[in-house]
Amino acid sequence: MNLKLNAGYAAAELVKDGQVLGLGTGSTTHYFIEKVGQRVKEEELELFGIPTSYQSFLLAKKWNIPCTTLNEYSIDLAVDGADEVDPQKNLVKGGGAAHTLEKIVDYSAKELVIIADESKEVEKLGAFPVPVEVIKEATQPVISALTDMGAEPVIRMGVQKDGPVITDNGNFIIDAKFPTIDSPVDMEIELNTIPGVVENGIFTEMVDKVIFGTKNGLKEL
Amino acid sequence: MNLKLNAGYAAAELVKDGQVLGLGTGSTTHYFIEKVGQRVKEEELELFGIPTSYQSFLLAKKWNIPCTTLNEYSIDLAVDGADEVDPQKNLVKGGGAAHTLEKIVDYSAKELVIIADESKEVEKLGAFPVPVEVIKEATQPVISALTDMGAEPVIRMGVQKDGPVITDNGNFIIDAKFPTIDSPVDMEIELNTIPGVVENGIFTEMVDKVIFGTKNGLKEL
Amino acid sequence: MNLKLNAGYAAAELVKDGQVLGLGTGSTTHYFIEKVGQRVKEEELELFGIPTSYQSFLLAKKWNIPCTTLNEYSIDLAVDGADEVDPQKNLVKGGGAAHTLEKIVDYSAKELVIIADESKEVEKLGAFPVPVEVIKEATQPVISALTDMGAEPVIRMGVQKDGPVITDNGNFIIDAKFPTIDSPVDMEIELNTIPGVVENGIFTEMVDKVIFGTKNGLKEL
Amino acid sequence: MNLKLNAGYAAAELVKDGQVLGLGTGSTTHYFIEKVGQRVKEEELELFGIPTSYQSFLLAKKWNIPCTTLNEYSIDLAVDGADEVDPQKNLVKGGGAAHTLEKIVDYSAKELVIIADESKEVEKLGAFPVPVEVIKEATQPVISALTDMGAEPVIRMGVQKDGPVITDNGNFIIDAKFPTIDSPVDMEIELNTIPGVVENGIFTEMVDKVIFGTKNGLKEL
Repeated sequence: MNLKLNAGYAAAELVKDGQVLGLGTGSTTHYFIEKVGQRVKEEELELFGIPTSYQSFLLAKKWNIPCTTLNEYSIDLAVDGADEVDPQKNLVKGGGAAHTLEKIVDYSAKELVIIADESKEVEKLGAFPVPVEVIKEATQPVISALTDMGAEPVIRMGVQKDGPVITDNGNFIIDAKFPTIDSPVDMEIELNTIPGVVENGIFTEMVDKVIFGTKNGLKEL
Repeated sequence: MNLKLNAGYAAAELVKDGQVLGLGTGSTTHYFIEKVGQRVKEEELELFGIPTSYQSFLLAKKWNIPCTTLNEYSIDLAVDGADEVDPQKNLVKGGGAAHTLEKIVDYSAKELVIIADESKEVEKLGAFPVPVEVIKEATQPVISALTDMGAEPVIRMGVQKDGPVITDNGNFIIDAKFPTIDSPVDMEIELNTIPGVVENGIFTEMVDKVIFGTKNGLKEL
Repeated sequence: MNLKLNAGYAAAELVKDGQVLGLGTGSTTHYFIEKVGQRVKEEELELFGIPTSYQSFLLAKKWNIPCTTLNEYSIDLAVDGADEVDPQKNLVKGGGAAHTLEKIVDYSAKELVIIADESKEVEKLGAFPVPVEVIKEATQPVISALTDMGAEPVIRMGVQKDGPVITDNGNFIIDAKFPTIDSPVDMEIELNTIPGVVENGIFTEMVDKVIFGTKNGLKEL
Repeated sequence: MNLKLNAGYAAAELVKDGQVLGLGTGSTTHYFIEKVGQRVKEEELELFGIPTSYQSFLLAKKWNIPCTTLNEYSIDLAVDGADEVDPQKNLVKGGGAAHTLEKIVDYSAKELVIIADESKEVEKLGAFPVPVEVIKEATQPVISALTDMGAEPVIRMGVQKDGPVITDNGNFIIDAKFPTIDSPVDMEIELNTIPGVVENGIFTEMVDKVIFGTKNGLKEL
């Protein structure tokens, strides 16, 4: 049973003809885009997609979903994945280093639906390190600031490239493991006020609905 | 009487042998760097500079101040300019589009001294629009968010290049004129929590001293 | 008599329904985009534009020309301006710092038409300095290489920002004044083989037609 | 027997007190930097390093080799690795996606020494795909141009990030497998003349010496 597929396909049923869609990045939204593409073909839907990464753009193109940008259209419905989801629908995202554009897209959507397999559901955020995107010149000062906040920060290193991973915006990612994240709302703000931090992977107060794929079927928050 | 020179030269007298200096950007810090360079030569000071822009780097090089980065050294004393300074030593900066790296450098310095001519002293911030550096893809959503906050946002356009000014980090600048800035501390945070905002030009709670050049001599806050 | 307008409007008459257009950047292509926009409205043309800069994108948006990218469509007709045009239809471009994306777009078009007022027609290229876009770290080595080639290289400085102009790709521009450009074809290649050079403003062997606006009417090459 | 270490340590013996060194990136130059660092400590050498990546910078910092930039110093000796080396000392580099800055550094050095284990020695370049760094907007046109040249081009995808690898300069890498590379010199130029190509991984006419680590000891070209 493919839990990611189940969640992704369910979200695709929420899409209505004529909408502009925010297209999240990752292995679960992959299925969402796939199913939307099938609906575009079979039902002759007229949609636009606004991708959150080159990967999502390529997928949209494969499925003949015409793409546009936030500078041309606003978003009716964004569907995105997550690395962790708590009961208040707060998220940690950014395992794929695309969270800055994802947050821009998700935040600007009229409706935001998160899809995930059940392993992403947590009582409390924080087992997954928080990805923090930083201007390169600020790497050491941000590492110091994160350490002062109690985190264990690590620069994310590349695999198909030497040295650190570079984001689509040209920046580094610091993965910051906190012992505990008591207030996601406060931490999201606190991280963004560190000079040199472009965006962090905590998403609060913006999710309308969560669809989990579970072994017992779909579960919604 | 050159008020900028007076302020810049006064700040240069604060520099001690062996220090690592943050070198702000602009027409006032220009004189600071010049005077530091003269002291390096005459007094054989051993200093390092950490420039906040290519412009400051070129000046430091001209005056034989060896340069380094925040990834190698931490800063003892940063000296920077400002577009507006209020009585609580809050600032608006960013007329030169260098405020993101300036904030990174200024924030990480053990001591931060602001230098300016007296025209920059204001009772309340806000006559000068607040420069907001944004990821390109987020331009329209950030403009919407700023408008919702009551501002009149304008994309800063280039002069020696077609289209918008691009910052040293590859981003756009939106100049946001607010009718009033009642709480600079709150506004600095609020602006940085808009997804797609890299950094804004409000600097609060980090200035140790301000030196104004006035027609009647130096004045300190 | 507006010579730029005349050239731009004439090129707009070449556009056919259903085409994908490359949209150059600058004060002459401005009129091309304007006239295409009027035709889209009046004749209900279905077109796509691929802008070469954010400036052209904003113009296209103003005129309701839907925009796409080279990653989705190939270009039927590109229309672009120039700073100098010689009798062999070689160009110098880049006064607006957009020449890298312009060259990408122009080169990939099935047909390329250049529009300019008559002041841009020259017997020999070279009165206008050649804009050379460079990776920041390579600035000094590229300046050395250009000097060795006989040029007087100058880093282009910003006006609404401190320090050098930054291109849409995040790089610097070095304006290289050569005493003479005897072989534009050879020089275009030689400049691009200097490590650190991203692209230069000499365009050779790609122009299909030039339309000059002159005081005596249109003139074609 | 660690062939990479042997080559790297041998090159480190070439370093003279007072030199400015170009520091290549990768698993072989790793040993070069390590040994230089040991010599700095033991022999109290005064050196500067100019790193070709953040990775090399971190290594230099670990070994207390002070770092500088090409905008401050020129290079006496650069030591770099390679993915392939032919008998004419032509190279293919770029497996680590750092080849643009490596070419900038290597090209500007008074002396360039390549170090590699013997597996990198080839009769003819081309078994290793040629990494081509491209401006994102030019991805499809460059793929078309490479295909026209006979290559099989593939966008390099990330591992610790979704979507394509991003270089330190913010661009994509296309790995272009050519059936054969008959003239590396011509191909290096031809690749760089494709609009949108920033730099390619073929290095010709710049290597002074190659040191291979072999099972039978060092071998020099």
